[in-house]
Amino acid sequence: MKVVTFGELMLRLSPPDNNRIMQSKSFNSSYAGSEANVSVSLSRFGIQSKFISALPSNIIGHTALSQLRYHGVDTSDILFKEGRIGIYFVESGYSQRPSLVVYDRKSSVIANTKTTDYNWKTIFESNDWFHFSGITPALSKELSQACENALIEAKKMGLRVSCDLNFRNKLWSKEKASSVMRRYMKYIDVLIGNEEDAKIIFGFDYTDNDSQKVKINEYEIIMKEINKNYGIKKIYFTLRESISATKNHWGSIGYDGEEFFLSNKYEIEILDRLGAGDSFAAGIIYSEINDFSTQKSINFATAASCLKHTIHEDFNIVTLEEVFDLMNGPGTGRIKR
Amino acid sequence: MKVVTFGELMLRLSPPDNNRIMQSKSFNSSYAGSEANVSVSLSRFGIQSKFISALPSNIIGHTALSQLRYHGVDTSDILFKEGRIGIYFVESGYSQRPSLVVYDRKSSVIANTKTTDYNWKTIFESNDWFHFSGITPALSKELSQACENALIEAKKMGLRVSCDLNFRNKLWSKEKASSVMRRYMKYIDVLIGNEEDAKIIFGFDYTDNDSQKVKINEYEIIMKEINKNYGIKKIYFTLRESISATKNHWGSIGYDGEEFFLSNKYEIEILDRLGAGDSFAAGIIYSEINDFSTQKSINFATAASCLKHTIHEDFNIVTLEEVFDLMNGPGTGRIKR
Amino acid sequence: MKVVTFGELMLRLSPPDNNRIMQSKSFNSSYAGSEANVSVSLSRFGIQSKFISALPSNIIGHTALSQLRYHGVDTSDILFKEGRIGIYFVESGYSQRPSLVVYDRKSSVIANTKTTDYNWKTIFESNDWFHFSGITPALSKELSQACENALIEAKKMGLRVSCDLNFRNKLWSKEKASSVMRRYMKYIDVLIGNEEDAKIIFGFDYTDNDSQKVKINEYEIIMKEINKNYGIKKIYFTLRESISATKNHWGSIGYDGEEFFLSNKYEIEILDRLGAGDSFAAGIIYSEINDFSTQKSINFATAASCLKHTIHEDFNIVTLEEVFDLMNGPGTGRIKR
Amino acid sequence: MKVVTFGELMLRLSPPDNNRIMQSKSFNSSYAGSEANVSVSLSRFGIQSKFISALPSNIIGHTALSQLRYHGVDTSDILFKEGRIGIYFVESGYSQRPSLVVYDRKSSVIANTKTTDYNWKTIFESNDWFHFSGITPALSKELSQACENALIEAKKMGLRVSCDLNFRNKLWSKEKASSVMRRYMKYIDVLIGNEEDAKIIFGFDYTDNDSQKVKINEYEIIMKEINKNYGIKKIYFTLRESISATKNHWGSIGYDGEEFFLSNKYEIEILDRLGAGDSFAAGIIYSEINDFSTQKSINFATAASCLKHTIHEDFNIVTLEEVFDLMNGPGTGRIKR
Amino acid sequence: MKVVTFGELMLRLSPPDNNRIMQSKSFNSSYAGSEANVSVSLSRFGIQSKFISALPSNIIGHTALSQLRYHGVDTSDILFKEGRIGIYFVESGYSQRPSLVVYDRKSSVIANTKTTDYNWKTIFESNDWFHFSGITPALSKELSQACENALIEAKKMGLRVSCDLNFRNKLWSKEKASSVMRRYMKYIDVLIGNEEDAKIIFGFDYTDNDSQKVKINEYEIIMKEINKNYGIKKIYFTLRESISATKNHWGSIGYDGEEFFLSNKYEIEILDRLGAGDSFAAGIIYSEINDFSTQKSINFATAASCLKHTIHEDFNIVTLEEVFDLMNGPGTGRIKR
Amino acid sequence: MKVVTFGELMLRLSPPDNNRIMQSKSFNSSYAGSEANVSVSLSRFGIQSKFISALPSNIIGHTALSQLRYHGVDTSDILFKEGRIGIYFVESGYSQRPSLVVYDRKSSVIANTKTTDYNWKTIFESNDWFHFSGITPALSKELSQACENALIEAKKMGLRVSCDLNFRNKLWSKEKASSVMRRYMKYIDVLIGNEEDAKIIFGFDYTDNDSQKVKINEYEIIMKEINKNYGIKKIYFTLRESISATKNHWGSIGYDGEEFFLSNKYEIEILDRLGAGDSFAAGIIYSEINDFSTQKSINFATAASCLKHTIHEDFNIVTLEEVFDLMNGPGTGRIKR
Repeated sequence: MKVVTFGELMLRLSPPDNNRIMQSKSFNSSYAGSEANVSVSLSRFGIQSKFISALPSNIIGHTALSQLRYHGVDTSDILFKEGRIGIYFVESGYSQRPSLVVYDRKSSVIANTKTTDYNWKTIFESNDWFHFSGITPALSKELSQACENALIEAKKMGLRVSCDLNFRNKLWSKEKASSVMRRYMKYIDVLIGNEEDAKIIFGFDYTDNDSQKVKINEYEIIMKEINKNYGIKKIYFTLRESISATKNHWGSIGYDGEEFFLSNKYEIEILDRLGAGDSFAAGIIYSEINDFSTQKSINFATAASCLKHTIHEDFNIVTLEEVFDLMNGPGTGRIKR
Repeated sequence: MKVVTFGELMLRLSPPDNNRIMQSKSFNSSYAGSEANVSVSLSRFGIQSKFISALPSNIIGHTALSQLRYHGVDTSDILFKEGRIGIYFVESGYSQRPSLVVYDRKSSVIANTKTTDYNWKTIFESNDWFHFSGITPALSKELSQACENALIEAKKMGLRVSCDLNFRNKLWSKEKASSVMRRYMKYIDVLIGNEEDAKIIFGFDYTDNDSQKVKINEYEIIMKEINKNYGIKKIYFTLRESISATKNHWGSIGYDGEEFFLSNKYEIEILDRLGAGDSFAAGIIYSEINDFSTQKSINFATAASCLKHTIHEDFNIVTLEEVFDLMNGPGTGRIKR
Repeated sequence: MKVVTFGELMLRLSPPDNNRIMQSKSFNSSYAGSEANVSVSLSRFGIQSKFISALPSNIIGHTALSQLRYHGVDTSDILFKEGRIGIYFVESGYSQRPSLVVYDRKSSVIANTKTTDYNWKTIFESNDWFHFSGITPALSKELSQACENALIEAKKMGLRVSCDLNFRNKLWSKEKASSVMRRYMKYIDVLIGNEEDAKIIFGFDYTDNDSQKVKINEYEIIMKEINKNYGIKKIYFTLRESISATKNHWGSIGYDGEEFFLSNKYEIEILDRLGAGDSFAAGIIYSEINDFSTQKSINFATAASCLKHTIHEDFNIVTLEEVFDLMNGPGTGRIKR
Repeated sequence: MKVVTFGELMLRLSPPDNNRIMQSKSFNSSYAGSEANVSVSLSRFGIQSKFISALPSNIIGHTALSQLRYHGVDTSDILFKEGRIGIYFVESGYSQRPSLVVYDRKSSVIANTKTTDYNWKTIFESNDWFHFSGITPALSKELSQACENALIEAKKMGLRVSCDLNFRNKLWSKEKASSVMRRYMKYIDVLIGNEEDAKIIFGFDYTDNDSQKVKINEYEIIMKEINKNYGIKKIYFTLRESISATKNHWGSIGYDGEEFFLSNKYEIEILDRLGAGDSFAAGIIYSEINDFSTQKSINFATAASCLKHTIHEDFNIVTLEEVFDLMNGPGTGRIKR
Repeated sequence: MKVVTFGELMLRLSPPDNNRIMQSKSFNSSYAGSEANVSVSLSRFGIQSKFISALPSNIIGHTALSQLRYHGVDTSDILFKEGRIGIYFVESGYSQRPSLVVYDRKSSVIANTKTTDYNWKTIFESNDWFHFSGITPALSKELSQACENALIEAKKMGLRVSCDLNFRNKLWSKEKASSVMRRYMKYIDVLIGNEEDAKIIFGFDYTDNDSQKVKINEYEIIMKEINKNYGIKKIYFTLRESISATKNHWGSIGYDGEEFFLSNKYEIEILDRLGAGDSFAAGIIYSEINDFSTQKSINFATAASCLKHTIHEDFNIVTLEEVFDLMNGPGTGRIKR
Repeated sequence: MKVVTFGELMLRLSPPDNNRIMQSKSFNSSYAGSEANVSVSLSRFGIQSKFISALPSNIIGHTALSQLRYHGVDTSDILFKEGRIGIYFVESGYSQRPSLVVYDRKSSVIANTKTTDYNWKTIFESNDWFHFSGITPALSKELSQACENALIEAKKMGLRVSCDLNFRNKLWSKEKASSVMRRYMKYIDVLIGNEEDAKIIFGFDYTDNDSQKVKINEYEIIMKEINKNYGIKKIYFTLRESISATKNHWGSIGYDGEEFFLSNKYEIEILDRLGAGDSFAAGIIYSEINDFSTQKSINFATAASCLKHTIHEDFNIVTLEEVFDLMNGPGTGRIKR
């Protein structure tokens, strides 16, 4: 089984040691992007994974590509063009101080690509799965169209398709996002998201009560509606409860059109939560590819993404064995010698 | 509104990465001091803030001054003289291991200044507020007199005056501190401190019971007495409950001569707690300058100083917006994109 | 009172800043080993402590030796020979992600030493205590015999002997370990370990219930049996309850042949838990040398090893004063100025 | 005497320790720009210096501004607007490996400002000198016009004006640069540059012979022509001879309309050569303000900029005393205790 | 054109910042090996390059493999087995202080592989070139045989073969090396080495005079003999003149059986000279593949390996363009913007 | 042979990576002092070496002591007292930028010790050599007297005595230094220094000509006079020629009362030149202890101290073998594998 993902790869700059940007004289640098994160995680699970994107034809672009290769991602179809890489600055939060993300991604090289730059027929050849998130169509009109082309071609060629809602309000309006994403839904086999994004995209307006129980009800109503309206068979939502920037509760809910399943839940001390949603998506894709039951799927994806919170940078550098150990074990973190 | 503060600026040396001094081959360096910390915090809130001090006329002194300028503090009246800067070594504690502070501040350049080095009339011109802490008069007899001169001149020129009790037993005896600080009280409009310092300075001897409720009672008694004896209208005490070196509960109590107010309370995971009291003082001064209600004042100052615990070094590098967000929001540290 | 310990000293390589090995381009380096850790801790408590081992006669070996000298350990009887130092890689865990230890210790210089390399009579001269752990005999047949020679000579010369069970399944089988360690028991005055190792070595097979209370019962049964079968008068077991890789509960139980004692218990936020057992052993040896009561012994050793969890690397760099402060105080980690 | 400079301030990202970008996981960060560099150098010499620019109204922009304040630059007239900061990546060369600069400065916040954003009359009030470089007009048409407005106003208000040619071929064509810069010349009192830029801007086409002596002849011809054609009284060119990325010879030539002067020459081992030209410009401005002779001016500016090569980042953090020591001494770098 | 190389990949540990091992508490880590270095350099030149080796099936082995993938090397035929990775410690020299390399490579996982682990027929399929160095056969008898098998198969399948003499006296005796390497010579198309290794392997014993001119004569005599005795058509030797650990002169000599060619010569300030010989070999292979003249080949390979001296770690991370720029340009290291 | 040295041990703080203090946010920390440096160097040569000093009884003092123990120095007679450690800040120079040393050593704990704190009879027992430098008597009157007491006792007990002139003008005047040091000369067997210090102490006033040849003449005249006036049999002066902060020529001259000897000369690229004089002194003491000829002594000491320039921090961490290799070899820094 081979997976193709499509999206932007950005340079991530974060001050070391929990420092604020204002008090730091250096940045740790890494490269990340929602779909690239999925590809890396799948590759670390042993799944062949190809990432489609565009990078600047300079030393930064080549370094970015090398980082994906490091993790075994197939980068052979990435475009190199004149231009700039998108950048985002991350200040890791701590306790009551929130993490801060400042984007500088406008006019990035991928945002300036054309639909004709992507030959989906060739790209998809001998691949089995296509994944993208709501960030890619938000980058430009051309990319929005490129996504749609990819979806049409993917279905034509028999690939299964997953989509992570991933709404970014700095990139497009709720109305625009809602209209575009809904249009895509008919191509989607597996939908991944969280409550907030689902409400924005699908227009739900439930009051946010304090009781966690009620929330689960809300999730179920939303999922049922999506299933009913768009015929998406598998829907997975993450459940995050923020205690502080350094402590979260983490779980997920899955719906297979008939039943709802709640995953194991984790109380996480957070090292770096960026990329958590993407690592969940990768966990779901891995589960679907391996025909896990819905219950096992959410348990696997939740354990995988729980571990992501304990790893610096966006990539979920964990092995299958580590995910299964957490998923099946007590999760007490005893030393492995 | 413009604020003048007066005190010592020291070089702070801390081993990186939670290391003990004995296992480290480097120190992170920064510059701090109770009153300088207040000035920096006010400046970051947008308040014009001038710091009065003396620094050695060498590269260390000029670097120290530059650090204040970095944060927008007015350093134009800082004296440069032959001598040394005070130094303190900080080993950040962790869990049951306490933080360790080793002072090497004797014979610092400010401790050797004379009362005649400070022309308060010129310094205070077109300023509105004067702040100092109990550390400044403890540094030398001359500085004790300089403080008193400043207080007299401040009142004469119509500035409001705040004082943070800040007792340091390495600098002077309880008796000496008590006698000097009480003498200053008639000039003070806003008194800031904590229970322990208040007891030492004002001679209270309540038993320290386990019940938090009883403690509040004690605070109220102490505050009423201070109000009664010295006519200070606004009194603010921080309430710290230490769970471990890395976890504290944090709140505050305010008294306006009539009513007592308890602030929001925070359970904090601590990155660096030095300067927390100073960031509270800055929050109070900001609140007073902006005529916040007593309740709003302690909520603002407590939120501000809560954030300080999550930031390395003594300076509270936070914006007004960040304080208000914490003060008015759930404090769950969700990412800001 | 002077203490001799005997074992391997290894190079420890850990990626900085909680990074995984796969994402790091550097390693923090230190030197550690179960018995060396005990020697360092005792030396920091003011006890004269000699470490017996073999190191490669190259720059790495000399650096390793210097690290022990740094902490005041007597290294004058350490052998230098052609060969390699054992190495272990440590990835510090976080929350649900376990710490990972990868050993590369085969064919180390000490594993290739002969029994004749150790003249125990000379080594033990004017010493009072001998300590080793179950790791040393596991390194090679020759070392297993060298341990036995040491035990025989130690008893002959009137030294008291302590042993930390320390089973390492990468080094030898349970059967082999059990057979060798039981053979040593007749020489042991003070036995140190934990439940798991005791079960492996002494062949107990109790079911591991959830209730902590039942566990204590199990411990008591095990300890009584050991006392009965081998006549060991003092037995100390650590009690670790893992919540996550970054949070553990920590305590201990002591048995003096008549009564069982439970120590103070600590809820620890962990910086680095390697060497915790060794710091407990050092605490016990210090207590025994100073004739502490069994209750005081376990309180002292538990406080000492609680602090180890809050210090990077294996060595427990704490002073007696710091241990007593934690042992007798509230353990709330308030700043020491 | 007060100096105003006008230009872009960028974020500079350089891998530490002479690493290439492709092998590094972090960047040292600083902020720099040709005119900002001049302002910082002048401020460190004790000259009041105001920098005019536009910065993004986010944490990056505020950090950039703080860096200038750190060095005492007056930042009160800097504009804050929505947008991005220009970025450049610097790979420090070594021996035969050249330094590499990758710009990502398109669509920066200053490039999008309008001429109407700059009220030169107010800005220049009570200032004596205006400095800019050829980079500023190259950023956009609006900035090209803003420069011209500034020049007109400066002359009207009696400020002296200096210009550093600073041609950047990534920003505009030689033809465009030549046409715009020549148009400005009538406003310029002091022209600073190097041979290459002068040839590009003023259209000289001398063959580049190997003999240094001939080159000096060329310089003289070029300078005389400029003096003749534009009436610029003071012209200063730096003379760089590259041996390798880590070794350069450095000197300068000055022309006062009558005589040519050659400066002291230095054989420099280079730590970081970015900003060298700007530090020379600052040295010239300082010299002109202090009415140094042409010979003393080039000696001062050359010594100042020689020191810049030995300091990391673009800012020339040196004191007047250090420049005079080098200018008047043997330059043998003996320790100052 | 595709190239296969065969050899050991080791973990390299070097103290940062020119520190000695004894004064450092950390190591920079990278992965290197003579043939792996060649593969990486070729891959960075755009040549498809496959590396054959064995790595431990643990996190260290997988990290090592990822580092090769980072640079685009085909790692699909690398074996994973239980065992350890070879390690070497590098202390970078400075001026008169020599660099120090301490090997800990005994019993590495590759040294324990069998000839049957390598199916050369499959490995060489659709490849055009095979390269190895004298280190590989020195690792074990099995590897010596594996090399011979590879050579036989390579010739049978029509691959061209290059060999870098690379004598390591820690691995085998001069006699053994001489006997084995001479046996291989009949399979070699392109021989790479330096004078010292050639003398050891081929048994020359010329006196080492001071005059460089005489040395060239010696080289010519040696090369002619090798050409005559073994029929190797292309022989390339590097010419290193050590001034100090931080300054070397660097050039090369090539012989095509008819004429001798001397390359451009470089006076290099050294950042890290490990891997220089390997980068020369990669340069030669690239030249041969592209049918460069002998003169152009040595100029290209010498320029490439000159640049290696200016880059940290063993890998020669340079582009073709950078090599050509140095080879054809003045080599004065002027900034590239 | 055992050596005692007596002096101050200070905390050295240097910004990393050649940064200036003003641009750095951290300091590398080490501990050094002229006589401590000598002890460490001797200890690394295998000579038993005891250091006499006083340190503050806090974590800084204990860390300082541990650093000496690390290198094998006997620290058993070091005094611990309330007080502060002397500190010095070092900015490493580069090319034309001089190194900068800022002292903050006033009122250090050793400067406040009394002559009665030092029982020289006990200290010197079973020792053979006493060394001190001109810094120790300059610290205070008491220390000046303590030095004299030590000298008297040393001669009484038959120790040989060496003295390094080491004049520090921040500590005492030339007149005071001259008067005290001359008084000590009758106790000195081996005098170490440089031309400048000798002129200051012994009142020579030769003109400093450019010609190196003339300088040697001057040295000879000075040395003869000292030999004649004070009867010192062995006099060794270092010869430093500063080209820049990063390049020096280094040699030495020795006089045995009859003949003058010039050492090998080295052109050094400097990493850190602090402690070079002390490493020369250690080399001389080692040579004298081993009865080297005067020629061999200066060659050994010069080679040893040449290597010091290539090592960070003040301690000369080199082995005997490394010194002999440089002394007898070509000094071309070829890799040692």
